[in-house]
Amino acid sequence: MPQTESPQITPILEAARAAARTLATTPTGLKNKALHGIAAALRGSASEILAANAQDLAAGTENGLSAGLLDRLTLDAARIDALADAVLEISLLTDPAGEVVRGSSLPNGVRISQVRVPFGVVGVIYEARPNVTVDIAAIALKSGNAVVLRGGSAAENTNRVLVGLLQAALSQVGLPAACVQTIDPFGRAGATELMQARGHVDVLIPRGSAGLIQAVVTQSTVPVIETGAGVVHIFLDESANLEWAVDIVHNSKVQRPSVCNALETLLVHEAAAARLLPAVLAKLTESGVTLHGDERVRKIYPAAVPATEEDWSTEYMGLELAVAVVDSLDDAIAHIRRYSTGHTESIITNDIVNADRFLGEVDSAAVMVNASTRFTDGGEFGFGAEVGISTQKLHARGPMGLPELTSTKWIVRGSGQVRA
Amino acid sequence: MPQTESPQITPILEAARAAARTLATTPTGLKNKALHGIAAALRGSASEILAANAQDLAAGTENGLSAGLLDRLTLDAARIDALADAVLEISLLTDPAGEVVRGSSLPNGVRISQVRVPFGVVGVIYEARPNVTVDIAAIALKSGNAVVLRGGSAAENTNRVLVGLLQAALSQVGLPAACVQTIDPFGRAGATELMQARGHVDVLIPRGSAGLIQAVVTQSTVPVIETGAGVVHIFLDESANLEWAVDIVHNSKVQRPSVCNALETLLVHEAAAARLLPAVLAKLTESGVTLHGDERVRKIYPAAVPATEEDWSTEYMGLELAVAVVDSLDDAIAHIRRYSTGHTESIITNDIVNADRFLGEVDSAAVMVNASTRFTDGGEFGFGAEVGISTQKLHARGPMGLPELTSTKWIVRGSGQVRA
Repeated sequence: MPQTESPQITPILEAARAAARTLATTPTGLKNKALHGIAAALRGSASEILAANAQDLAAGTENGLSAGLLDRLTLDAARIDALADAVLEISLLTDPAGEVVRGSSLPNGVRISQVRVPFGVVGVIYEARPNVTVDIAAIALKSGNAVVLRGGSAAENTNRVLVGLLQAALSQVGLPAACVQTIDPFGRAGATELMQARGHVDVLIPRGSAGLIQAVVTQSTVPVIETGAGVVHIFLDESANLEWAVDIVHNSKVQRPSVCNALETLLVHEAAAARLLPAVLAKLTESGVTLHGDERVRKIYPAAVPATEEDWSTEYMGLELAVAVVDSLDDAIAHIRRYSTGHTESIITNDIVNADRFLGEVDSAAVMVNASTRFTDGGEFGFGAEVGISTQKLHARGPMGLPELTSTKWIVRGSGQVRA
Repeated sequence: MPQTESPQITPILEAARAAARTLATTPTGLKNKALHGIAAALRGSASEILAANAQDLAAGTENGLSAGLLDRLTLDAARIDALADAVLEISLLTDPAGEVVRGSSLPNGVRISQVRVPFGVVGVIYEARPNVTVDIAAIALKSGNAVVLRGGSAAENTNRVLVGLLQAALSQVGLPAACVQTIDPFGRAGATELMQARGHVDVLIPRGSAGLIQAVVTQSTVPVIETGAGVVHIFLDESANLEWAVDIVHNSKVQRPSVCNALETLLVHEAAAARLLPAVLAKLTESGVTLHGDERVRKIYPAAVPATEEDWSTEYMGLELAVAVVDSLDDAIAHIRRYSTGHTESIITNDIVNADRFLGEVDSAAVMVNASTRFTDGGEFGFGAEVGISTQKLHARGPMGLPELTSTKWIVRGSGQVRA
């Protein structure tokens, strides 16, 4: 593996492997003690964190980052508190390492059991979201994995401070600081090495824009878990409850438009369009949402601007929404199959048959009935925090928490048995 | 994805996707009916299969295939019967699709459940093992997946006959023949397209030599599950029972030397080498095993030829074995960490502390105490048959049966809830 022989990040990967071997046999109690130290450090050093974050925000504004990206980059006292709370929540969760998934005795008396074990070394490549640094470090620590982080340069100052706090908290309880490392100083070359470090990195998780994920997927020789990109749909069925439609569409689009579970395309059954669209879209307009509608939408709601083909596959990550009228549930499912990134889709309906068809035939990480798409989230699902939301089918799908950062091994106990 | 726009295999992939959508909603009973038809067709057409296999064997002998490869390629009446039995066994297993993995009610009353769903379209690239064609087709069918197969050219005649039988049996029960397709006629170009068919193929499984797997891993943009390559170790601890050592080592090496769970390297504690090696190695010699020993081994058993550095990382797949004396359990674990491919390792010991250390510290898909390494097998584990043995940590590790060919999706049921 010539790439991994490079002098650049090899020492970091070797330190990560050594740290991972230590973590694999570290009792849960000590890992929890480290998590409490991390939470305390976050609250105790809030001003230091915010100062570094202010630098990044200033630079980001200067470099013309979008409102969505700036929101993802922003930390404030409340968000730091929420981060510390998430870390404490993770300390309360069951340690997945050592969990017996299944087991049996074979006819010959050999006993087999499948047991959860940490991956070992987890690489994460993400964009300018400082909260990801803490979430992932905490989840990796609790699940017994060492992490090598490559954050976006736009968050470089914030992440440097955060990683420093994390490493100090680890050392304080006698765990290797190398359980959490950053390769940001190595720039793009470091990221490329990380993607090629097969055998040194057990799994690589890209978290961010579709472009970032595509780049990692195509360049990486390390097994990858894809996350994030979400062209999220809601379908308002003929029988949809008006109040639910208004509230769920508004919440899905407006509550936090910059994240991957936010609504991007609204589909409406033609038989319900006139009944539902005026109120649903008016509430969005009140909140400053730009609507991209097809012709039938604009007949009902002329304020919508004409939608282009591109709109149906766009993840706006802001206060914009594509809206189309469809003839049937089948057309809605066909539209979703064509344009969805397989993240989250929701149907608003009172028809149990249509609900079950939607749940069964839409092939996405999360499929919903009469609920906001914003619920596809590790915290909401009770995972404490999340590594990301997997939109691939391999290993993990949907919000990834602690068990999703483990592998398994088969333990086989015999008493001299041989195969006949 | 320009490659997937190629006229070559795109129609096959589209047919596979359509077949996968049908399979996803096909009742288990009908899938089982198809499996019974397949088993009957195998037995009923044994002579046709053996005639095609004889052509492949003749060509293989002419092309100088190794004894191990010829063994993998060989079908006979007994192996065809065993294949049919495996298919029937799969029909008796629980259908993994629809299994609820976990679920809960969130504080706000939203109900979430994680349900197993088929991957969709599974690609398999393997070498000249006709049994793989049937095993994988049956497991994929039962788990609701369409498969696109790329077998080794050395088995081309056998596989053509087998795929024809499979498709006829599928059609007979009204299932799409495209549930099982081969791209062998497209040669290497077809295989390359398959590896690049991201979005059209949900998971790609290479099954065969380390070279094949490495090629797929580095070229594929489709998520891959690595299988197979096994530099398998047994460590004879100081307290090893002599009879168990003799029988387990012999069985692990000799019972079927051409497969990936066969023993390749034997390590012996120096304090037990003189007690154990003469009998253990003599029985191997009787069976025609060539022994590659280090100096300390050759002092005790001069018949061994000198081992080279290369031997420690060689998967012989034949009647050869590398043998080394180590000073301690720690040295044995260090040797395994350095040279193992993470497939299967076994310790022969009466010492419970050493057994637990070996099970805990050796990071392989299967770790064993006092059992033959040949037990790492889907059939032995009760999976009915196996897609292969995963040696990666992502998604599946060890023998892969039905559940390993599924993904999951989150079903979220609300009654108007929005996120606060």
